[in-house]
Amino acid sequence: MEQRRQATAARLAELKIDALLVSSPPSVRYLTDYAGSNGLILVSRAGADFFTDPRYGLEASQKISCRVHVAKQALIAAAASLIKRKKLKKIGFESAWLRFEDYSRLKEDLPLGFSLHPVGRVLEQQRMVKSPSEIEQIRRSVALNSQAFSRILARTRPGASEQEIAARLDFEMRRLGAEKPAFETIVATGNRSALPHAHPTGRVLGVNELLLIDMGATLHGYSSDMTRMAFAGTPPKRVRDLYRAVLEAQLAAIGAVRPGATAGKVDSAARRVLQAHGLDREFVHSTGHGLGLEIHEPPRLGKRDKTRLEAGMAITIEPGAYLADFGGVRIEDTVLVTAHGCEVLTPTPKELVQI
Amino acid sequence: MEQRRQATAARLAELKIDALLVSSPPSVRYLTDYAGSNGLILVSRAGADFFTDPRYGLEASQKISCRVHVAKQALIAAAASLIKRKKLKKIGFESAWLRFEDYSRLKEDLPLGFSLHPVGRVLEQQRMVKSPSEIEQIRRSVALNSQAFSRILARTRPGASEQEIAARLDFEMRRLGAEKPAFETIVATGNRSALPHAHPTGRVLGVNELLLIDMGATLHGYSSDMTRMAFAGTPPKRVRDLYRAVLEAQLAAIGAVRPGATAGKVDSAARRVLQAHGLDREFVHSTGHGLGLEIHEPPRLGKRDKTRLEAGMAITIEPGAYLADFGGVRIEDTVLVTAHGCEVLTPTPKELVQI
Repeated sequence: MEQRRQATAARLAELKIDALLVSSPPSVRYLTDYAGSNGLILVSRAGADFFTDPRYGLEASQKISCRVHVAKQALIAAAASLIKRKKLKKIGFESAWLRFEDYSRLKEDLPLGFSLHPVGRVLEQQRMVKSPSEIEQIRRSVALNSQAFSRILARTRPGASEQEIAARLDFEMRRLGAEKPAFETIVATGNRSALPHAHPTGRVLGVNELLLIDMGATLHGYSSDMTRMAFAGTPPKRVRDLYRAVLEAQLAAIGAVRPGATAGKVDSAARRVLQAHGLDREFVHSTGHGLGLEIHEPPRLGKRDKTRLEAGMAITIEPGAYLADFGGVRIEDTVLVTAHGCEVLTPTPKELVQI
Repeated sequence: MEQRRQATAARLAELKIDALLVSSPPSVRYLTDYAGSNGLILVSRAGADFFTDPRYGLEASQKISCRVHVAKQALIAAAASLIKRKKLKKIGFESAWLRFEDYSRLKEDLPLGFSLHPVGRVLEQQRMVKSPSEIEQIRRSVALNSQAFSRILARTRPGASEQEIAARLDFEMRRLGAEKPAFETIVATGNRSALPHAHPTGRVLGVNELLLIDMGATLHGYSSDMTRMAFAGTPPKRVRDLYRAVLEAQLAAIGAVRPGATAGKVDSAARRVLQAHGLDREFVHSTGHGLGLEIHEPPRLGKRDKTRLEAGMAITIEPGAYLADFGGVRIEDTVLVTAHGCEVLTPTPKELVQI
């Protein structure tokens, strides 16, 4: 954590600020390991100051290695006092996260001569490349998620409802030690698989129907993400063809992942394959996203993203094709960018499972 | 929903604004029934305009009774265009919710002559007093939550880990029809019960240990919240005394709930009892909070809150006392303020359960 805070502090000069106020919960966690709901950290050249309320005081002072301030007032007011005392004149803040109210409170509390500077996603950028210990956490999260999937899929039969399957997947993850699902588990049956963000309903898996499961676990704060497909019965040619096209696109995208490649290039590798199958218009989202302490982090593997991939980034590769009134297919792995290419972390086989 | 939007519009004159931009997801849901992750509503005297992205376009236009705009750009930019077109000069916004980035974008998009006005928690105030249909939803959520608790507690024995118990509680909620837990279920064993917001760990409930369970369900968007205690064995005198003191404080606070009483007065009713037991310094949080579409809503039942309770408010009453290295006790009900006092909605008995 100390190293991470130093890396943040090393960017202050370039950002032309004396300190950076970090308020987004995942970045606060990244810099302190504090996982509660009310924390704030101020990173300056002289080190870092962490603020929380009395509920978390004891835990924070035991666990956090920088200075801990337990504030009875609003955290932002406590931070303002310290900023004045330390004469930190130029304060950067995360404009995508700070609420106007806190911005305004901070501005009012600071005397003339102090100024506030919106900065972009500085911590999100820093978090893109994962450390070996973070990669290990993601690896464990991925393994746990796949284990929960296979255990439940093996027991899933036509007649189970989407909600029931989702509840069982979530329970299995938790039993295996996950804190929670990394996002609302998606279970979509039949032609509902054509909705990329389907909430599970009471609809029951019928015979000769597609089953789409998109799930991830949060383990020690770190996310995993995977989508797999099953078919209740013997899949007809149209399903097999659709599946094969998406799988080909997914493998092409994985093949394009290497340090130096742009995120957009990986996306177009998948899109080109689907185009060849006449399915590019049915691919209505981007090819993937970074993940870590958040389930969606930069980079976004979309058409316009020019981010160059680097070894140590953890991303998803998840093309899909969605045919309204028929059904959709998506295949998704969690992938690690390595020195010479990539490693698919997800161990789950990629055949269209028949149940 | 139409009535609710009219009630919001009726406040524009007093707030000296031409329209109010509502961006907080629970308030957007309150005004439209839209439960997705990307919605925005602009309430003016001429009616309301709802903005969302293409993912939710179809569903929104079918379900929402005001004007629906499906925006391909950022929602805030689409709202800015409409504001200009309609010449709505003074725009109020929710300063506790709007991120600085969106505020800044909106400000840049609006020409001279247009102005932005931070307003307080206008929608949260409107949402404090629940309608009969909202009370019914909360009642159902509370009943479901209590049912999940009793089913799982009956099967809980020493040797179960905090994570396992939490996973079983969450699964049971889901099986009973809840969308999700209203917050991360807290299960704390032994002296970890002294941490008011303990995340469940792999720690196992030992014989002669306290077990604290703080859980709530979300059902059709509405929350419930309850804390109960159990003891694995025959509780020694110190535990019994601690439990009795907190229960006495909880009952005193419930006795103080009536229309016209300030939130602060209810808090001090609990605090006074704990003081008499020499435990006021061990009561490190406030006595309760409102709940509804959010798990934490105004009023806050803390020392300084002057909000006067009104019939129709749904609140929690949850004093606690926490002794580091020994353990803590919290007892919490969901309570409805009624015309002449209050109704405790939580049906679960309040004895210290022995398991």
